[in-house]
Amino acid sequence: MERVCFTARIRRDKLAEYTERHGRVWPEMAEALRAAGWTNYSLFLTRDGLLIGYLETDDFAAAQQRMAQTEVNARWQADMAGFFDGIGDLRPDEGFNRVAEIFHLE
Amino acid sequence: MERVCFTARIRRDKLAEYTERHGRVWPEMAEALRAAGWTNYSLFLTRDGLLIGYLETDDFAAAQQRMAQTEVNARWQADMAGFFDGIGDLRPDEGFNRVAEIFHLE
Repeated sequence: MERVCFTARIRRDKLAEYTERHGRVWPEMAEALRAAGWTNYSLFLTRDGLLIGYLETDDFAAAQQRMAQTEVNARWQADMAGFFDGIGDLRPDEGFNRVAEIFHLE
Repeated sequence: MERVCFTARIRRDKLAEYTERHGRVWPEMAEALRAAGWTNYSLFLTRDGLLIGYLETDDFAAAQQRMAQTEVNARWQADMAGFFDGIGDLRPDEGFNRVAEIFHLE
């Protein structure tokens, strides 16, 4: 099992709306994540716009690939693109920076 | 159950040593964390020194308090103090910034 942490930057002027949107993620998006093997998945957001993701999955590369093939993910990422800072022409989920785990306690 | 995410800053010139030290956390420190109710606890470290912690616990305030009362935590935090940036006279575990969860998928 892989524990995955990633970061991204949300625009300062969009923090409230980004938070609000994540209180009502489309059920079909949640279902697609589950079906693709994303489990125990949380997003955390600092007051200055640092987004931190944490999830557990059998194989992150495979889980990402499965999501990338879904139609709902393309729609969701297009909808989210305007919230992100510094990702240029990437889709948000292509602009995530994975962070190395240096310690774990069960 | 609370899912907790926190951040802190590690000195850029100390990243390798901080990482190395977390590959050999004292067994009595790990045991104290477990006994205090810190579970599924990971630390992640970016290449520019952002430390991200994630853990699960029944009651984070109580779990922190239980750790603060242990002798091994005082020794560990004293040992780690030189690695942290911008915490002044705080112990490292007093300088952690908790980050709000905005989304969760089981």
